[in-house]
Amino acid sequence: MGTVDTEPYSSSEVMDGRHKVAVPPPRPFFQSLKNTLKETLFPDDPLRQFKNQPGSRKLRLGLQYLFPIFDWGSRYSFDFFKADLIAGITIASLAIPQGISYAKLANLPPILGLYSSFVPPLVYAMMGSSRDLAVGTVAVASLLTGAMLSRDVNPNENMKLYVHLAYTATFFAGLLEASLGFLRLGFVVDFLSHATIVGFMAGAATVVCLQQLRGILGLDHFTHATDVVDVLRSVFSQTHKWRWESGVLGCCFLFFLLLTKHFSKKKPKFFWISAMAPLTSVVLGSLLVYLTHAENHGVQVIGPLKKGLNPPSASDLAFGSSYLMTAIKTGIITGVIALAEGIAVGRSFAMFKNYHIDGNKEMIAFGMMNIVGSCTSCYLTTGPFSRSAVNFNAGCKTAVSNIVMAVAVMITLMFLTPLFHYTPLVVLSSIIIAAMLGLIDYEAAMHLWAVDKFDFLVCISAYVGVVFGSVEIGLVVAVALSLLRILLFVARPRTVVLGNIPNSTVYRSVEQYPAAATVPGILILEISSPIYFANAGYLRERITRWIDEEEDRMRAEDKEIRTLQYVVLDMGAVGGIDTSGISMLEETKKAADRRGLKLVLANPGSEVMKKLNKSKFVESQLGHGWMFLTVAEAVNACNFMLHSIKPVEKDGKKLDDDGEEEEAAGKWRV
Amino acid sequence: MGTVDTEPYSSSEVMDGRHKVAVPPPRPFFQSLKNTLKETLFPDDPLRQFKNQPGSRKLRLGLQYLFPIFDWGSRYSFDFFKADLIAGITIASLAIPQGISYAKLANLPPILGLYSSFVPPLVYAMMGSSRDLAVGTVAVASLLTGAMLSRDVNPNENMKLYVHLAYTATFFAGLLEASLGFLRLGFVVDFLSHATIVGFMAGAATVVCLQQLRGILGLDHFTHATDVVDVLRSVFSQTHKWRWESGVLGCCFLFFLLLTKHFSKKKPKFFWISAMAPLTSVVLGSLLVYLTHAENHGVQVIGPLKKGLNPPSASDLAFGSSYLMTAIKTGIITGVIALAEGIAVGRSFAMFKNYHIDGNKEMIAFGMMNIVGSCTSCYLTTGPFSRSAVNFNAGCKTAVSNIVMAVAVMITLMFLTPLFHYTPLVVLSSIIIAAMLGLIDYEAAMHLWAVDKFDFLVCISAYVGVVFGSVEIGLVVAVALSLLRILLFVARPRTVVLGNIPNSTVYRSVEQYPAAATVPGILILEISSPIYFANAGYLRERITRWIDEEEDRMRAEDKEIRTLQYVVLDMGAVGGIDTSGISMLEETKKAADRRGLKLVLANPGSEVMKKLNKSKFVESQLGHGWMFLTVAEAVNACNFMLHSIKPVEKDGKKLDDDGEEEEAAGKWRV
Repeated sequence: MGTVDTEPYSSSEVMDGRHKVAVPPPRPFFQSLKNTLKETLFPDDPLRQFKNQPGSRKLRLGLQYLFPIFDWGSRYSFDFFKADLIAGITIASLAIPQGISYAKLANLPPILGLYSSFVPPLVYAMMGSSRDLAVGTVAVASLLTGAMLSRDVNPNENMKLYVHLAYTATFFAGLLEASLGFLRLGFVVDFLSHATIVGFMAGAATVVCLQQLRGILGLDHFTHATDVVDVLRSVFSQTHKWRWESGVLGCCFLFFLLLTKHFSKKKPKFFWISAMAPLTSVVLGSLLVYLTHAENHGVQVIGPLKKGLNPPSASDLAFGSSYLMTAIKTGIITGVIALAEGIAVGRSFAMFKNYHIDGNKEMIAFGMMNIVGSCTSCYLTTGPFSRSAVNFNAGCKTAVSNIVMAVAVMITLMFLTPLFHYTPLVVLSSIIIAAMLGLIDYEAAMHLWAVDKFDFLVCISAYVGVVFGSVEIGLVVAVALSLLRILLFVARPRTVVLGNIPNSTVYRSVEQYPAAATVPGILILEISSPIYFANAGYLRERITRWIDEEEDRMRAEDKEIRTLQYVVLDMGAVGGIDTSGISMLEETKKAADRRGLKLVLANPGSEVMKKLNKSKFVESQLGHGWMFLTVAEAVNACNFMLHSIKPVEKDGKKLDDDGEEEEAAGKWRV
Repeated sequence: MGTVDTEPYSSSEVMDGRHKVAVPPPRPFFQSLKNTLKETLFPDDPLRQFKNQPGSRKLRLGLQYLFPIFDWGSRYSFDFFKADLIAGITIASLAIPQGISYAKLANLPPILGLYSSFVPPLVYAMMGSSRDLAVGTVAVASLLTGAMLSRDVNPNENMKLYVHLAYTATFFAGLLEASLGFLRLGFVVDFLSHATIVGFMAGAATVVCLQQLRGILGLDHFTHATDVVDVLRSVFSQTHKWRWESGVLGCCFLFFLLLTKHFSKKKPKFFWISAMAPLTSVVLGSLLVYLTHAENHGVQVIGPLKKGLNPPSASDLAFGSSYLMTAIKTGIITGVIALAEGIAVGRSFAMFKNYHIDGNKEMIAFGMMNIVGSCTSCYLTTGPFSRSAVNFNAGCKTAVSNIVMAVAVMITLMFLTPLFHYTPLVVLSSIIIAAMLGLIDYEAAMHLWAVDKFDFLVCISAYVGVVFGSVEIGLVVAVALSLLRILLFVARPRTVVLGNIPNSTVYRSVEQYPAAATVPGILILEISSPIYFANAGYLRERITRWIDEEEDRMRAEDKEIRTLQYVVLDMGAVGGIDTSGISMLEETKKAADRRGLKLVLANPGSEVMKKLNKSKFVESQLGHGWMFLTVAEAVNACNFMLHSIKPVEKDGKKLDDDGEEEEAAGKWRV
């Protein structure tokens, strides 16, 4: 056991063409730890620009790092301002009705939606690095806040506590976002895959649309649950309370909104038509109600809105409340969701305009804007896709468009709130539905099905989980499935048989290249994942099965070389190995010895070589001669041995189970 | 955007030596699903032997599959029996005192330990496929059962309910084990890595030893907690109650046991000395107490044990109890732990004797033995390492040694239980400590440190978690860390720069092979993990950083070719790609275009080619000409282009941020 075999190179003719497999130069433990941590947490090397700079410049760079406005502010021009002004006014016209609608979705007083479009955009304009993001509340996070808080506190019975909990949740969401950014853990958001987000968004949009049936049908009482079964039961159990006035109004406005949207999509130049449509609807709807006194005929209206800017709310944060855990949980989940949407939106537009966004820095900006928001009567904000797209189309140049929007909202808050008294709720519902329908991206889902079935499964699970379970269930199921895929990739790695591509020294999968020819007597296997504890057992068994199958095949074919002699493992795609993996190699080596086979390693990478070297596997078990730089060299050496040394013919009988492995030794006669 | 570039081969001289990258032949969806499921759940192909067999033979094979005794039973010989008899008696002498001790550890009546060494070994002998496993209770699972059940039900106050819950937990443990086996989910156990088990076992052994201070010091009252702080506080808060008689007796027997163990380790032929030592200690201790009446002087004894075989307990299973959830939770956790130990032990000895064990089949055997056990007054059993090692050393040939042990225990139960009346508890404590010390494998931990620091971290976390937290905490932390490693491997894959190994067409990491030479104007990067959602963002940024750094370096060096022209991605180690990964490639391609660089892919594997083909990335974005079978071919083609086509000199200024990518087009002049 563990004896080093005679090495295949006694003859110099083969040795000459051979390359040595190198062990990477050793590095002290702390340096290698530092490198690993740097690659994990600082892959983008944000401190690079600070290197070799004098102290004062470092301070200035640090300030610019945290507050990018100091960076681009000095280069700001009047041309930029003109563009930003137009974009800012456009998004303000969208922000006001959307803010009110989404606040209703979260069961919060409508005025909070306006507050949330005033302070957070100002904070983001200072700290954010995206030029296109328009800050505001979003439907999904609003729905989620409403659903999670309503479970414990009834907003109709105790609105004050409910609002305070919403602030507290916002505070914790901000704290989480900022901490993730400071701790450079931004990659957590990466675990929400594109497929998860497509399914989740579509599910949330479906749920939000269903919720709007309440507004469209003018219902007073409604379920707090978000799943489709409960909502439909709630709707159809009170058919006698449906109000046709409300329904007709809702359908008309919905039609109007969808029409403008369709038009703007066809002719992108007229983006402002769909951007202005919500505000137009609000104005038209309010006028209609005011003139016809429809509020007395089943059309619910917003009612009085307080005039004035955001009151401070730092003292309202309910840290001492018995519902603190609810607020923390809500904050964490909504914070992550909001973050994922904001980061994705920011990155998409940055890629479009070819500038760079530092995810971790963005997280700090989002976090600070929500922490400040929670102290100024705002609830959770992020960078919604729809509003940012309008901002982008309107030609915004910098985050100044957010400042313009904030000023517009400020003016509204100070002078115009009474105008919203007669705004019918049904118009708000129509605005939400029109916005949500765009989030159901069935084309993306079909693309997933065409390209990657597993991604489609993740997407559908997220959708079904959200629609039939709850928003959290959908999310957890989809993330768990996504992680399962990674774990399964490692737990069940592909092993493929390689063959020689004709007229080359290249060895590739015989499945992918049917022309590739296997080499008689030599089984070449490629392992295409790291060898970790999770797959060590599987790989051991799978390699055994490959050997069994190959021996069966050779016996059946009855060629000149009738027995398998060498097993070459191509380690080129093995990115890492742990102690279980090394044990696996040791066991495979022993098992091969017992069967009279030679194990040969080809092309181990630097991580693998480091570990093999430290564990003395090569010295004490494999033998240096049985490791090669390429598969081609390994096969050449095996072929050389195969044809110059005649092995004792195997007699077909299986080795006795209890047979000592010494039997396998002394098998070679020159 | 997305326009296909002119392909590099207008000249036939280079084309001739080129190999096409193949797309693997398409497979219908259901066939590929079937294959994936087969590889995931049936990697060992257990149904292979049933193929092409007549019905009656299939039935016989199926029976032999479930009950291996029908397979090996027919070949059983008298020689085998002689060996099994000796081994069986040896392990019985160990099983009786250990059984009693471990039952005390679980706060269960001592007689249950004997019951558990009677029925389960018989079931295992029928269904198990290991020839060396000796079935019995184990310390860690006993401790865990005791700790988890005592939290909810006090065994001193309500022993009946407590025992019933222990049966119920055993039932669920068995159910879980059998289900995992039937559902072919055996690989779940693989996620307990070797490092986890080393740390966990050492932690559990430490905790168990500390618990024995109670017995050694003769304390009546003791904490139910298992962490070191609580236990030591409990011990030192009652120093006035320590009994020196008990302490002296304990230390003497411990010394005796450790001495025999040390001796047997030095001379493996005398394995029976350490195997017999526990029974000898019990006999000596009982005699001593009986003769000196030490039970009246502070030495606690077992007391009366009921004579007779296991009473049925199926009706005691507490399915209706309000503590059912506790029982289920206990069952699941102890079941998995017991399974992991049993499977690992079985596999180790099977590897030693070179026979094969089917993990899923073993799970069914373990599960059935515990389900049957729970109906016959037994608690959780598995294959303990210490007892199986004795069995192996005693020369057992088949599972018949388990039957012999069961018969010996049966005789004890029927006639000899009164002899244990005066057995001092302190002897049992010494037996447990002696057994446990062997589980603290600090050499393995040091090996982990030497070879793999992360494995060491996992190991230490498990140890610290168990010792300072609880058994479950240690386990959860260690498993979470192990999974984190896999996730981090995928989330932060290594990208390395490749260079040409002198005198070859091979390209390898320049870090591993310092002699490898990079090619001017061409950056060759190897990605060594699948490209999934979790790393798509990272890889995009990391590739950009490589390009930046390479450009900086080239500018500084001021050689003839001063600008980077080609980025070759070696995809050989990319085992899979999902839709996020494909988006990443698309974005990287666009970003490269904008910078005036050409993106080239080398050696995409079959999984990657399938997805690239389905997503039309090659046709519509990359262009077929920019994909090569090997890095060498890619570099040749790039070099050919580099020297025959002169690119317009880059003027050093960065492309404007808002610059349209059309600028990058038309850059080539022949």
